[in-house]
Amino acid sequence: MELNATTMQHPQTCLEITMEVHQVVPPPHKSTIHKLKSRLKETFFPDDPLRQFKGQPTRKKWILAAQYIFPILQWGPNYSFKLFKSDIVAGLTIASLAIPQGISYAKLASLQPIVGLYSSFVPPLVYAVLGSSRDLAVGPVSIASLILGSMLRQEVSPANDPVLFLQLAFTTTFFAGFFQASLGFLRLGFIIDFLSKATLIGFMAGAAIIVSLQQLKSLLGITHFTKQMGLVPVLSSVFHNTKEWSWQTILMGFCFLVFLLVARHVSMRRPNLFWISAGAPLVSVILSTLVVFAFKAEHHGISIIGKLQQGLNPPSWNMLQFHGSHLGLSIKAGLVTGIISLTEGIAVGRTFAALKNYKVDGNKEMMAIGLMNMVGSSTSCYVTTGAFSRSAVNHNAGAKTAVSNIVMSITVMVTLLFLMPLFQYTPNVVLGAIIVSAVVGLIDIPAAYQIWKIDKFDFIVMLCAFFGVIFISVQDGLAIAVGISIFKILLQITRPKTVMLGNIPGTDIYRNLHHYKESMKIPGFLILSVEAPINFANSTYLNERILRWVEDYEAEEDLKKQSSLRFVILEMSAVSAIDTSGVSLIKELKKAMEKKGVELVLVNPLGEVMEKLQKSDEAGDFMGPDSLFLTVGEAVTTLSSTIKGQSSNHVV
Amino acid sequence: MELNATTMQHPQTCLEITMEVHQVVPPPHKSTIHKLKSRLKETFFPDDPLRQFKGQPTRKKWILAAQYIFPILQWGPNYSFKLFKSDIVAGLTIASLAIPQGISYAKLASLQPIVGLYSSFVPPLVYAVLGSSRDLAVGPVSIASLILGSMLRQEVSPANDPVLFLQLAFTTTFFAGFFQASLGFLRLGFIIDFLSKATLIGFMAGAAIIVSLQQLKSLLGITHFTKQMGLVPVLSSVFHNTKEWSWQTILMGFCFLVFLLVARHVSMRRPNLFWISAGAPLVSVILSTLVVFAFKAEHHGISIIGKLQQGLNPPSWNMLQFHGSHLGLSIKAGLVTGIISLTEGIAVGRTFAALKNYKVDGNKEMMAIGLMNMVGSSTSCYVTTGAFSRSAVNHNAGAKTAVSNIVMSITVMVTLLFLMPLFQYTPNVVLGAIIVSAVVGLIDIPAAYQIWKIDKFDFIVMLCAFFGVIFISVQDGLAIAVGISIFKILLQITRPKTVMLGNIPGTDIYRNLHHYKESMKIPGFLILSVEAPINFANSTYLNERILRWVEDYEAEEDLKKQSSLRFVILEMSAVSAIDTSGVSLIKELKKAMEKKGVELVLVNPLGEVMEKLQKSDEAGDFMGPDSLFLTVGEAVTTLSSTIKGQSSNHVV
Repeated sequence: MELNATTMQHPQTCLEITMEVHQVVPPPHKSTIHKLKSRLKETFFPDDPLRQFKGQPTRKKWILAAQYIFPILQWGPNYSFKLFKSDIVAGLTIASLAIPQGISYAKLASLQPIVGLYSSFVPPLVYAVLGSSRDLAVGPVSIASLILGSMLRQEVSPANDPVLFLQLAFTTTFFAGFFQASLGFLRLGFIIDFLSKATLIGFMAGAAIIVSLQQLKSLLGITHFTKQMGLVPVLSSVFHNTKEWSWQTILMGFCFLVFLLVARHVSMRRPNLFWISAGAPLVSVILSTLVVFAFKAEHHGISIIGKLQQGLNPPSWNMLQFHGSHLGLSIKAGLVTGIISLTEGIAVGRTFAALKNYKVDGNKEMMAIGLMNMVGSSTSCYVTTGAFSRSAVNHNAGAKTAVSNIVMSITVMVTLLFLMPLFQYTPNVVLGAIIVSAVVGLIDIPAAYQIWKIDKFDFIVMLCAFFGVIFISVQDGLAIAVGISIFKILLQITRPKTVMLGNIPGTDIYRNLHHYKESMKIPGFLILSVEAPINFANSTYLNERILRWVEDYEAEEDLKKQSSLRFVILEMSAVSAIDTSGVSLIKELKKAMEKKGVELVLVNPLGEVMEKLQKSDEAGDFMGPDSLFLTVGEAVTTLSSTIKGQSSNHVV
Repeated sequence: MELNATTMQHPQTCLEITMEVHQVVPPPHKSTIHKLKSRLKETFFPDDPLRQFKGQPTRKKWILAAQYIFPILQWGPNYSFKLFKSDIVAGLTIASLAIPQGISYAKLASLQPIVGLYSSFVPPLVYAVLGSSRDLAVGPVSIASLILGSMLRQEVSPANDPVLFLQLAFTTTFFAGFFQASLGFLRLGFIIDFLSKATLIGFMAGAAIIVSLQQLKSLLGITHFTKQMGLVPVLSSVFHNTKEWSWQTILMGFCFLVFLLVARHVSMRRPNLFWISAGAPLVSVILSTLVVFAFKAEHHGISIIGKLQQGLNPPSWNMLQFHGSHLGLSIKAGLVTGIISLTEGIAVGRTFAALKNYKVDGNKEMMAIGLMNMVGSSTSCYVTTGAFSRSAVNHNAGAKTAVSNIVMSITVMVTLLFLMPLFQYTPNVVLGAIIVSAVVGLIDIPAAYQIWKIDKFDFIVMLCAFFGVIFISVQDGLAIAVGISIFKILLQITRPKTVMLGNIPGTDIYRNLHHYKESMKIPGFLILSVEAPINFANSTYLNERILRWVEDYEAEEDLKKQSSLRFVILEMSAVSAIDTSGVSLIKELKKAMEKKGVELVLVNPLGEVMEKLQKSDEAGDFMGPDSLFLTVGEAVTTLSSTIKGQSSNHVV
């Protein structure tokens, strides 16, 4: 009102000001339904998967829909012999890796070795039809195998009750697939985003160590080994059973481990020599089997796989158990393994898609992986996903399409049908060495260093995941890391930054006074920028913090005897949302400032924020044209002239 | 590199540009320890409680410290007879309210009526010494009483095992106080901020209805009443026991309820008639007791309190139980009642402090309330806090300091010592009526309407709290509402807004194209503003969303045959923080844009964000001077001239 009086007496000044001041207008009106609709779309369909259907004739729409569900229809018709040549090389390469790894990972999950091969046969076929990644090599993976085995062993012993254990493994696989497909179908894929990169790096490294520790059993030839997973019980079990150590086993394990690690190292240095590390596991298996066979080493302390079944996957839908006392365990294990393996599969798919510049639809990929596991659970397969190491080999070997998965699958089929007896004399110690050399790649020291350099808090999250996995348990370590990550976000929201802005001389630009040293305070103005949405979790804090800025300003003035504070400008450009508590905060601040004889001015409230402020301000107390500006510069210019107007008034 | 070549050939243009472009400088260097320190300070000491100690002599510091711990030392020395006159009126007024409410709320918690009076005697004295609010009237409150009773009744029956029940009530009170004091001491007071206003309004209304439903027992004179709290079981219990209804009780209850509600209504209309509603409960108690005594109504179906103990609080520290099978229950109930009563106490304190323009230190207040409850638990008191209704009466009656609490406390003491026999004939139905008339005030329809108007999502949260409390349970309703509130915040972070900016003609101002209709696109530029911190939870989404903006832009261009996209400008002013995933996102976007032949340009990254981006960009790929500007306007001007330079180059 004071201001109005002033402008009345100085029409000319006022006119000049109005010329250069831009009005802050409310955003165009949208109905609640419309807003809800666009909010839902952004939440669940951010990638706009139906965009390609727009404006197409009906027949084309049907074709597109079929191609959307079965990506094979998209690339299949254009498939050429040239592509096939590339795919067959890649497929044979990953098969040579998949067979020994399949056997090894199944043992990691306390399942019979053949289940690992079953799982390398059916799921890749399903994925080839449904999946949209061209590089993903599908099959069992180490971490999901580890978690599946360790969670089920808590309730059922695979040695005493092998049938029940197998039933639970298949049931868990079914639930894992069901959760995966549901996440994709309900478009909740963003849930896996809560596993941040830092969490995953710590988790993977921890899991790699846990997996490697488990291999000490076969690498040292120990027969009585702990059933626990943690670092402490495993090491104590190892050193309490030193008399069970077998030097033959240790020697053999050491040789093959060195061979595998050297092969890995060579391929890492020279990506075009990828076939060295890709072929090494199979070579190890063949060599070690020959050695055992030739020297009858199984009678000299080296344990071997033993007789294996032959033939293709038997049906297993009759083994799924949807009732009984272990149902809760299956569901829980399904959820954990499902999410972990989904995270790995999606991350791998996205990585290679970005390299080759094509797109992977996260939610659709989840449905593909989920369906693959549901089919797998009915055909004697356990949890599978896109494995990082094998996909990298696939990519380096020149895979062009999912046909490489089909080639691998057929190779595994041939193995299942005819070559199983050859594995009878394969020593367990070589399987252990294969696992260790595979999981070593999960420990990513350079990435950890990078995280340390960029963000200390992320580094702490990583350490929590790492030590949680090693000392507590795989699931708890993961849960702790995710909890801390979310806590960090909530803390950021609870304590948003407020920053004092100053004018960069000679411009209309206002920036953080503590960042841009050349920027200057404007006498009589306190310009604050709030850098977060304002909501219930931070409105109390913001209230206290802003009042403290004002008090600090006043205290400093007392010292300098400057002109007193007239205006507090809140720059709202970074306030992306507000809720009822936030609206109350603005009202309370306005009142508190009025009591001090200071005027609160808002600058550039964004669409939604402005709408809510206006709805709550029927009397026009704080959203009138005198206290709302489009830029800080315009606010300062306009309000300065009213001060001058008033003081010249006093002089008159 | 392209750009560098251009600038080499056009040194003059380049010079002109450099003149008006402001350099983006990194923020002044701070050590990790320093950053951590200031972060911790903002998190735990946002109100800077030690500021008054700065620069004071040691003796003054000791005095300030003593005053900080015991606020009574602050106002005590200046206390005058004039203030005392005001306080004595206020104290007597709230005593007349506290005595009947104390008896009633104790019954609500399934405790003996006298425990309610004990709890109105000791805690106010403790608070008067430690508390910093001048208006808070301390004593038992309805919601904490309800929760305490309902949680303890789950395991122990107050009828069958009254001693154990009392022991658990005191133990719960101890834990409630301990949690409250710890929250304050550890400066974790912000945890109660997670109970948003919307949650509280829904919760309070639901609790009021649950409390009122419980009163149907005494209002209708039913003897066999359900022990459950939900709407459904209570109503079914009421209508299955219609033959127990007593018309004398109903008549008496109806009359007094109408009297109390009318008194409340009158005081609400005219705040200076506050004494009508303040005195009404005591008047009701006296009147009804006289009626019962005169007509010997206790023989005509009206149940009375019965003989009461006399005397002051007996010590109860020997009744605290820190072991045994019910310990978990005590801790849980302590946590819930502690947080709920803390929320009420702090909110009430803040409300009246804001009205009278003084400050309440949240964390210190928590310690005061916590210590008060810990002392209370050793002196036969159950959970107490600052009650909203009584504090309002205290304020209206003109209370100036916490002396009004002392006056109330002394009045209660006199009652305990001499007047207890008078309550023997007080009918239970009047206590029920007093409770109902008190909790009716917790149902705040106008506030609910205001929330509906401003923020539909907050309204949903409110409804969840309300229906959760009514149909599930008090604790679960609260937990659901808090869960949904936090989920909303996380969703906002997972799906941050990205907005396309356009230039407001004739200015350097860039604003949302969909909000400010006059703003115009700049050909060749796509200017996007990201309105949230970038972190692991949203970097995948942002990647997809930004690529979609680019594709949309390109698709539109194809239609219009405009000049093709050259620059994507990311306005980062609203990106308050970034983590390693966010840094990777920027790197990936840079690469993806390069593949399209588009350059990614960042505008005004804030201090911390800029630091992290620079640390991760050792090669200078995306933080060089060509791709970093202080304002969108400068970026557009500079980059436009390079386009022109290039095209003129082509012409040459």
